[in-house]
Amino acid sequence: MKIERSFHSRIKKMDFENISFGNHYSDHMYYSEFRNGKWINSIIKPFGNIMFSPGSLVFHYGQSVFEGMKAYKDKHEEVFLFRPKENFKRMNRSAIRLEMTTIPEYIFMNGLKNLIDIDRDWVPKKYGQSLYIRPILIAIDKCLSAKPSNDYLFMIISTPADYYYKKPLKIKIEEKYSRSASGGVGFTKASGNYASSFYPTRLAKEEGFDQILWTDSSTHTLIEESGTMNVFFWLKNKLITPLSNENILSGITCKSILSLAKEEGLEIEERKLKVSEIIDGLKNKILKEAFGCGTAVVVTYFEIISYKGKNFFLPDLLDKERISIRLRKKLLDIQHNLSVDPFGWRLKLKRIL
Amino acid sequence: MKIERSFHSRIKKMDFENISFGNHYSDHMYYSEFRNGKWINSIIKPFGNIMFSPGSLVFHYGQSVFEGMKAYKDKHEEVFLFRPKENFKRMNRSAIRLEMTTIPEYIFMNGLKNLIDIDRDWVPKKYGQSLYIRPILIAIDKCLSAKPSNDYLFMIISTPADYYYKKPLKIKIEEKYSRSASGGVGFTKASGNYASSFYPTRLAKEEGFDQILWTDSSTHTLIEESGTMNVFFWLKNKLITPLSNENILSGITCKSILSLAKEEGLEIEERKLKVSEIIDGLKNKILKEAFGCGTAVVVTYFEIISYKGKNFFLPDLLDKERISIRLRKKLLDIQHNLSVDPFGWRLKLKRIL
Repeated sequence: MKIERSFHSRIKKMDFENISFGNHYSDHMYYSEFRNGKWINSIIKPFGNIMFSPGSLVFHYGQSVFEGMKAYKDKHEEVFLFRPKENFKRMNRSAIRLEMTTIPEYIFMNGLKNLIDIDRDWVPKKYGQSLYIRPILIAIDKCLSAKPSNDYLFMIISTPADYYYKKPLKIKIEEKYSRSASGGVGFTKASGNYASSFYPTRLAKEEGFDQILWTDSSTHTLIEESGTMNVFFWLKNKLITPLSNENILSGITCKSILSLAKEEGLEIEERKLKVSEIIDGLKNKILKEAFGCGTAVVVTYFEIISYKGKNFFLPDLLDKERISIRLRKKLLDIQHNLSVDPFGWRLKLKRIL
Repeated sequence: MKIERSFHSRIKKMDFENISFGNHYSDHMYYSEFRNGKWINSIIKPFGNIMFSPGSLVFHYGQSVFEGMKAYKDKHEEVFLFRPKENFKRMNRSAIRLEMTTIPEYIFMNGLKNLIDIDRDWVPKKYGQSLYIRPILIAIDKCLSAKPSNDYLFMIISTPADYYYKKPLKIKIEEKYSRSASGGVGFTKASGNYASSFYPTRLAKEEGFDQILWTDSSTHTLIEESGTMNVFFWLKNKLITPLSNENILSGITCKSILSLAKEEGLEIEERKLKVSEIIDGLKNKILKEAFGCGTAVVVTYFEIISYKGKNFFLPDLLDKERISIRLRKKLLDIQHNLSVDPFGWRLKLKRIL
């Protein structure tokens, strides 16, 4: 792998006190091309524009999959990745479903480790802050036939991140639009899954909600996931999350929250979850908490769930009473190297470059 | 609109006797940017690469919609577009569903007319050949937040086209994978719809089929469309096509075929069409023809339809007995200015440049 250092760091222009998610990229990027069946031209180089043919397949037929992951600092300013191999594996599951090349582990992991090492100053220091890392694989063949690309480009870019949501969320249970079909690509991080959610999400926002709670496209009676989040419900003293299926993104934060909850001794159910159970729980005040989790949002609880035009308020608990807040702290403590890591989730980044 | 002519035409390298679809682009492209709410920098310029930030939203969240249309030549080498305003309107319907900007008619139509005028030598001359035209709208914001882009790029590129399929098709009725969800974006030409079809299509090809016949994602009992084609069935002396809905692309060739069939006096039904009707028709030999149509494929008939592992052969008719062949000729005759155009579908391209 070639390393080409930036001679004009933009870090002094970065205001770590007011991080606006996704607007500032770190100084470097990782770049590797898959051409004629081989990975070539792997390089860490200054973040910058790339030339594309207007015929590039990614524009026309949407062969594009990505990942979201984070690097955290501890109080000694050591940098830690969180479960990066889970992202590596999920990216390849996405790539397979979209009929793209898979990425070898050395390409993904070496690119990742070297990039975050060279840009370690971009990892913010405060609790809850992180460097959000975006690996992305896109199709670059220039032929307009509607068929899979032979050649691909794999890149990793990163951007400092603070809390994604600054307050509890108002969520609308969707009854008309759908995020994914059974037999479709809902379980992948395909770029097309996001564009299709923007219109219904805008409609929900115009009604005063922050996000949609997606339901199955066939019946709209089963809970799936929320915008960029998996969801949990604390119902009748059980922590329930919809069973991962082909419509639902298999969340790494979700799996981590499940492990932490089990470690706490909470009773857990991963199963089909009916909208009617949630609504009954809200009406009967036995649904105590509902929250979303994901790499970008970490853990964020809901204050309102709306269904068929009616808003239901979740109980107004104190933070110290909330399971969501407790699990969030447990997760962040591990991520920031403030607690032991019984699961082996943290990967301390060696100083290589 | 600025015009920047190519001084190095590539047309001499183009072998019009052996056209390989999508591999050769005409000399010029149309390019226009939507920034801060305004269309700017509209230009016709030599086809060539464009700079993109690795953070461009099109890569990450799939905001990308396109169109497919064709220009034909008559025997006097005049060039005709076919129903271009239908493409213009459909592109904006796609853009709206993907929460993108819409394109003003003057941007679309002036770009189109001037581009094809300047590249009119790239329109092949033979019957059935054409210049395939690809308008595409993509998101270019560089912020990694999962939200709609503010800025967009609209381009038109083109590539000479011959017959897409050179022989009748073997089609598999899909029972597991899905192309689109109700409440989803199946009716749009969103790039993500295509990437998600590649994996199941490859599986079908490995079984010896050319394309999939998609069914509804909820029950897999209703016929939707085939790969890049709407579908027609000649069953019990009626021409039946699935009623356009939110899962099915509203095809311009499909609508044209319907008009031509009506003009012929054929009995037509646009309605929900069950897989079981097709299978019964095949078993009882009352399904006489089945065919797909679309801009790229024009009209192509099926020789085999497979369901649950069993191949059903369509009747082996002579070309002169086939409704598909007759309708195809009627359509191409209008497109090539060989017959009257009672519908006003042809748009003769003025020599402007």
